[in-house]
Amino acid sequence: MLSSSLRSLGKFFIEGRLLVILRNKFSKKMNIDEFVQNSFGRWKSQRSGHNLAFQHFEDVLSTIDITPVASDDNAVLALCKLSNILPESVTNPFKMEWEGQSDWDDDEITKGSCILVPVPDRETPNTGQLLRSQGYAETIAATGRYRITEDDVFFLETTYDRAAAEERIWFGTPNLRFRVSLIKTSDGQGVLTASFASEIRLMKTPSE
Amino acid sequence: MLSSSLRSLGKFFIEGRLLVILRNKFSKKMNIDEFVQNSFGRWKSQRSGHNLAFQHFEDVLSTIDITPVASDDNAVLALCKLSNILPESVTNPFKMEWEGQSDWDDDEITKGSCILVPVPDRETPNTGQLLRSQGYAETIAATGRYRITEDDVFFLETTYDRAAAEERIWFGTPNLRFRVSLIKTSDGQGVLTASFASEIRLMKTPSE
Repeated sequence: MLSSSLRSLGKFFIEGRLLVILRNKFSKKMNIDEFVQNSFGRWKSQRSGHNLAFQHFEDVLSTIDITPVASDDNAVLALCKLSNILPESVTNPFKMEWEGQSDWDDDEITKGSCILVPVPDRETPNTGQLLRSQGYAETIAATGRYRITEDDVFFLETTYDRAAAEERIWFGTPNLRFRVSLIKTSDGQGVLTASFASEIRLMKTPSE
Repeated sequence: MLSSSLRSLGKFFIEGRLLVILRNKFSKKMNIDEFVQNSFGRWKSQRSGHNLAFQHFEDVLSTIDITPVASDDNAVLALCKLSNILPESVTNPFKMEWEGQSDWDDDEITKGSCILVPVPDRETPNTGQLLRSQGYAETIAATGRYRITEDDVFFLETTYDRAAAEERIWFGTPNLRFRVSLIKTSDGQGVLTASFASEIRLMKTPSE
């Protein structure tokens, strides 16, 4: 099985698009701007959710688009105002849009989008706030704290009214992202669900 | 759905055993001995495998037992000899045994076990070698390099003849471990499969 997987590696087509998951050498110690810019594009996501109490699995295939948003976009300015943030202190706001299909219900397509606004700390830009127009655990605006670790993992903690979320996102290669998300009790003491996503960048073929 | 999950949290029984997934405060900057000792016990594992080329999911439930092994155990001494390691330089050898059921074939139970032997580097014990009697990607003895990151992630890289494996293991709480495993091409440039496991410690009830 391994050797057949090995043979299949390299370049291959999925849905008519050329997919390359070879790793380029890329520098360590990413900053928040590089992290966001490296995330721009269309991603094919394969996500598995684990309900820890009941040991249920949920497998979801989705498409994620991550695109830049202007710093003076109305949605960005509104989020800044909501969090008392100076608009000039934000960097690389972006939009995430997703459309996915869960194995729990073949007919149910989940769609959504949110605006995300990084606000690096002035002295240590590897840490900061992340404003979002819609949270991961609850569908209201939320503010999380991020830091980028020595291993280039974007680590985000967000506290909501009745839950907390912890996300780790890192690049396996420039065209492959991984994301581990935990939903915890609001005091951060217990973990309710854990999910893991493998996200592969969809690239245009040369003819497109 | 979130609030019902919240209500179910705390203490609950699975298969007659008391399961507690509350987080105790435990110190940061784990060393290799603490990491191994914290891993001893019986774990209920929920693992999702992602085949990245074909976007297949594989969901596996299994039981994992991690138990200490004596440093002068014959299997440990044999592994040391194979890798030209002084037997007195090993710390906390342990055995992993697993028995699991994949959703690919309900009748197939996969069982296995291996001996693992940490050999910390003399100057920097947070890094070192991990000898194992049976590899993750290939079923032969293998030697990996480990390091424990600033975030207490046990990070292991193992190179085999025709593939390489990368594993990240960390504790969400003292009784909850997460593990992300990648199988890569032997040059480390491409990722073939990624898997994510949530491992919950099974604890004895007070009456046992």
